[in-house]
Amino acid sequence: MIEVGIIMGSNSDLPIMQETADILKELGIVFEMTVVSAHRTPERMFDYGKSAHKRGLKVIVAGAGGAAHLPGMMASITPLPVVGVPIKSSNSIDGWDSILSILQMPGGIPVATVALNGGKNAGILAASIIGSSNSEVLERIIEYKQTLKEKVLRTAKEMEENALNQ
Amino acid sequence: MIEVGIIMGSNSDLPIMQETADILKELGIVFEMTVVSAHRTPERMFDYGKSAHKRGLKVIVAGAGGAAHLPGMMASITPLPVVGVPIKSSNSIDGWDSILSILQMPGGIPVATVALNGGKNAGILAASIIGSSNSEVLERIIEYKQTLKEKVLRTAKEMEENALNQ
Amino acid sequence: MIEVGIIMGSNSDLPIMQETADILKELGIVFEMTVVSAHRTPERMFDYGKSAHKRGLKVIVAGAGGAAHLPGMMASITPLPVVGVPIKSSNSIDGWDSILSILQMPGGIPVATVALNGGKNAGILAASIIGSSNSEVLERIIEYKQTLKEKVLRTAKEMEENALNQ
Amino acid sequence: MIEVGIIMGSNSDLPIMQETADILKELGIVFEMTVVSAHRTPERMFDYGKSAHKRGLKVIVAGAGGAAHLPGMMASITPLPVVGVPIKSSNSIDGWDSILSILQMPGGIPVATVALNGGKNAGILAASIIGSSNSEVLERIIEYKQTLKEKVLRTAKEMEENALNQ
Amino acid sequence: MIEVGIIMGSNSDLPIMQETADILKELGIVFEMTVVSAHRTPERMFDYGKSAHKRGLKVIVAGAGGAAHLPGMMASITPLPVVGVPIKSSNSIDGWDSILSILQMPGGIPVATVALNGGKNAGILAASIIGSSNSEVLERIIEYKQTLKEKVLRTAKEMEENALNQ
Amino acid sequence: MIEVGIIMGSNSDLPIMQETADILKELGIVFEMTVVSAHRTPERMFDYGKSAHKRGLKVIVAGAGGAAHLPGMMASITPLPVVGVPIKSSNSIDGWDSILSILQMPGGIPVATVALNGGKNAGILAASIIGSSNSEVLERIIEYKQTLKEKVLRTAKEMEENALNQ
Amino acid sequence: MIEVGIIMGSNSDLPIMQETADILKELGIVFEMTVVSAHRTPERMFDYGKSAHKRGLKVIVAGAGGAAHLPGMMASITPLPVVGVPIKSSNSIDGWDSILSILQMPGGIPVATVALNGGKNAGILAASIIGSSNSEVLERIIEYKQTLKEKVLRTAKEMEENALNQ
Amino acid sequence: MIEVGIIMGSNSDLPIMQETADILKELGIVFEMTVVSAHRTPERMFDYGKSAHKRGLKVIVAGAGGAAHLPGMMASITPLPVVGVPIKSSNSIDGWDSILSILQMPGGIPVATVALNGGKNAGILAASIIGSSNSEVLERIIEYKQTLKEKVLRTAKEMEENALNQ
Repeated sequence: MIEVGIIMGSNSDLPIMQETADILKELGIVFEMTVVSAHRTPERMFDYGKSAHKRGLKVIVAGAGGAAHLPGMMASITPLPVVGVPIKSSNSIDGWDSILSILQMPGGIPVATVALNGGKNAGILAASIIGSSNSEVLERIIEYKQTLKEKVLRTAKEMEENALNQ
Repeated sequence: MIEVGIIMGSNSDLPIMQETADILKELGIVFEMTVVSAHRTPERMFDYGKSAHKRGLKVIVAGAGGAAHLPGMMASITPLPVVGVPIKSSNSIDGWDSILSILQMPGGIPVATVALNGGKNAGILAASIIGSSNSEVLERIIEYKQTLKEKVLRTAKEMEENALNQ
Repeated sequence: MIEVGIIMGSNSDLPIMQETADILKELGIVFEMTVVSAHRTPERMFDYGKSAHKRGLKVIVAGAGGAAHLPGMMASITPLPVVGVPIKSSNSIDGWDSILSILQMPGGIPVATVALNGGKNAGILAASIIGSSNSEVLERIIEYKQTLKEKVLRTAKEMEENALNQ
Repeated sequence: MIEVGIIMGSNSDLPIMQETADILKELGIVFEMTVVSAHRTPERMFDYGKSAHKRGLKVIVAGAGGAAHLPGMMASITPLPVVGVPIKSSNSIDGWDSILSILQMPGGIPVATVALNGGKNAGILAASIIGSSNSEVLERIIEYKQTLKEKVLRTAKEMEENALNQ
Repeated sequence: MIEVGIIMGSNSDLPIMQETADILKELGIVFEMTVVSAHRTPERMFDYGKSAHKRGLKVIVAGAGGAAHLPGMMASITPLPVVGVPIKSSNSIDGWDSILSILQMPGGIPVATVALNGGKNAGILAASIIGSSNSEVLERIIEYKQTLKEKVLRTAKEMEENALNQ
Repeated sequence: MIEVGIIMGSNSDLPIMQETADILKELGIVFEMTVVSAHRTPERMFDYGKSAHKRGLKVIVAGAGGAAHLPGMMASITPLPVVGVPIKSSNSIDGWDSILSILQMPGGIPVATVALNGGKNAGILAASIIGSSNSEVLERIIEYKQTLKEKVLRTAKEMEENALNQ
Repeated sequence: MIEVGIIMGSNSDLPIMQETADILKELGIVFEMTVVSAHRTPERMFDYGKSAHKRGLKVIVAGAGGAAHLPGMMASITPLPVVGVPIKSSNSIDGWDSILSILQMPGGIPVATVALNGGKNAGILAASIIGSSNSEVLERIIEYKQTLKEKVLRTAKEMEENALNQ
Repeated sequence: MIEVGIIMGSNSDLPIMQETADILKELGIVFEMTVVSAHRTPERMFDYGKSAHKRGLKVIVAGAGGAAHLPGMMASITPLPVVGVPIKSSNSIDGWDSILSILQMPGGIPVATVALNGGKNAGILAASIIGSSNSEVLERIIEYKQTLKEKVLRTAKEMEENALNQ
């Protein structure tokens, strides 16, 4: 069953949002992915938000750049948790516009914002939200973090050996 | 006939948006004013935007603070020009969040953004938009600017006299 | 059963984090609340993070100001979703330090960041995370958003009536 | 009849301002385009501003980078609405200088500011200003937004099909 | 003979610009002071700038807040050195708007910008410009800096004595 | 006689400071140019500053990047006007560090700051400082501004002709 | 024997720098404290820096606001470690000017920068520098951190008890 | 004996941190270098910090990018002075995130922060910390600064000769 809906404001956001898809796949979570533009297809955005929890989705991950209204508008329509991914688009002001448009939501309508261009982290956060009531998924996250740790330990070992030879 | 619709995201934006109302009154332009929240009443926002030009409005002035989505969302729904007023609300980050959320709209959906807390300027801009095809209103704007000039000249004269006595 | 752990870096963060507690209470979610300092009690932080999911917690909400390391460090220790609340403390640089220290986490370790001083929104986000797999809680969130909407509509009506009388 | 005057501070602003020209052409609005430098040809700027509404112009679109004074000075001279386009020029500080010099106008003299490098959006805004009292132009804007929507829907369909095959 | 012209965009800038007047008086330099608004009295600004060097002025000190165009426009009209004073006005964004509008002038038209609210330093800079070809004034600046030094030395002595008693 | 001293913190600042040299040459002003590092050769900086006005210099132009202390320190040592050029060096934070280190001088010690990388404008400002008491140099600045104007008028004419053919 | 020299650019920095003095006293480290202005008493600054290590000082703590050159200039003169304290003075731009002027030192001349207004932390850092080769002082720092920890644990206990009673 | 521990959050920080290693080697200070990730190997970070002073280390230099928690967390664990190196990593927001996460530490837990990407300066600072109680190392720092000075003097001479020939 599809548990995560990945949406983005524009086709140009795909390289970042594909990272969300990739990590969700790696963590065994079923997702769908499409374009929903707050500004160009507002009705479609409404329909998506109104029906998401009825279709069984558990989390919506929304990425957008510039004056990024998609994550916040989605959060105003759905009762599900919305993870927002600020994207540094071409005419962005170093990403500040996207970050602040997503993060600074008014009281009552939160968006779970991740780092600039943080597509991968959005997927991990979506997984941990599902994992908070699904012990099997939680276990996969624990394992995933274990692999991160092991990779660092291997790198550390290599660097220490190289340092000795300097 | 009502030509300008003034809307704001929250009651707390009223002190700034009242300045829009006051200057429009002074310039003899009929307006309506209400609260429309992008995040708390998205359907109402849609209805307002869809019907505005059919009801004879010529400009919409929208004020909002924080992650300010109202002006941009309104611009995505209506074909009318939308004037956006960034408002420095209580938990705002010096107003940057509101400015960037309103200004940095993607290609295709402009918002005519004015200065932070620029309620008065939003009203003058709305009047000049109406004035661009209404010579009577244009004349009133020319007169208004003339009064601004005269006020400066009086102040200048006073200051020069004071300076002489220093 | 306790489902949300609210932690904060310092006693001075309480006014913001109490808002998390208040809204969770209103939404009928059981929580615990305490001080855990990343910098002054690192071992305590570790113990808290290591045991949280074993004690049945589903979400951790962590607030901190300045160089705010608590949310991110907690996210590195627990597999549960961590909601981070940037707090504008006394020597903060307009809150930028706290926002960026919480938001800009490296790949692999996300923090679900909410707005500056967004204690209330952190509680709502925690509730919606729980609600994503608990239909009763989801229903309460839908109702909560309905009350927000009704409040706006009442305010709108009042403002429209006042505007008529201007 | 020429309805929009496109002016820019320097030849180097042309790539952005050509986008204004292109979209106005697409929307069937007649325009003129030239260089008017606030700092290098102040008299010419004055003449342009003084005569614009007498020559039948309805909107002036002014683009400039750095300490961008052209849009604001133009707004101080003409009673017409002035659309300002901040341009990220070579020694600009990420565009902040241009944005703030155009946006933060004092009370009485608004500039309708669009996004950084938002030449295209400036043209659409100019068109919607004309459209606010010209139903034929308004209709073209409605159609233009419809094409934006259809493009997004096609992209969405493609992405959904690709996602199924991942 | 009047050697320095102090101008400001608005009466509200007087507290800062009075500091310029005060230090010039202290340094024995004759000045005039008035209001010249780039946006409200553009013709007056032109006349002032065109005639300044003919009237014998040697430096123009111009203060303004927000989108502060007065110093830069004045520099485009006069061949004299223009000292610009960014002023943190009420709706300013922490003074950034004023600083960048004055500092970031395009090639060919410099403004000698001083610190935010630096009215006093503008006066000292104007004096040192005059002093660069007037050995008597130069001598007074050398003496002025000597008094600054002595004041610090007295403070240092007091603090050292207090520290001994801690 | 040498009237302007051009100094810079490091050899890497030369491309920007050469622009100062070039425009001074064009304006017929004699200068010297060298490296003086506030942090690496503090004694040399002192000697330079102490002797500059005695050697007949009238203006010092100082360029530096990062935590740029050279212009401000020079201003603390010499009674001459110091023009500061912020330079966007390799590890600079978008030039903000250099701008603020030069601009935000304390009361008593002004630096005449020009735009980021504004080597050319620094030269023009130095010339206008000399011109303020030298009518021949003043005349050359008036002529220089005239050539800027004519260049813009030529460009304007070309663009207007091109626009007609679009 | 005096081991730490506390210096500051101005008397107005004393409230912050007194915190350095207080914590050094608490940690049993002997210090001296005075005013040394980079811009008003450059020779005194030189003398201080040249002699510091000869007089037996081991660390210099320097606080300054605005374009804060004292810490960096001191670091260019002395071979001792210099701790820099950025101070948010009255006309500072939110402290950014002071932070960047102290932090962004060029290669070769580091300043050990602490947080904005971080007088207390500067003292602790000075102590830990001394402690790095003095086991008795190191022990006192370990104890000091222990008291910080115990204070947090007491606060935590109180908050947990209060939370139970909510 | 190893006196300095160089640690970094990720392998990608090596090019900057290698500069620390290189300058320490040049100054004859023995160091070790490895990867310790606050977020991926928190236990390893604890072990490193707890044992560092017992193993004879005198300074820890820690580099990290983005939400850079490693230097601050290390400072919370060890009584030794910690030098923090902000690193401008790929998705960093111009380095601001890293700078503020390291610099803005709360009272009690200082980090000696150096410039963005200031790996070299971190090494010199570490050396001067050791030098503050080791006259031989202090002497080497004095010599090092002398070589910096001589290099500037050579460059100055070359530039002066070139300038004569322009």
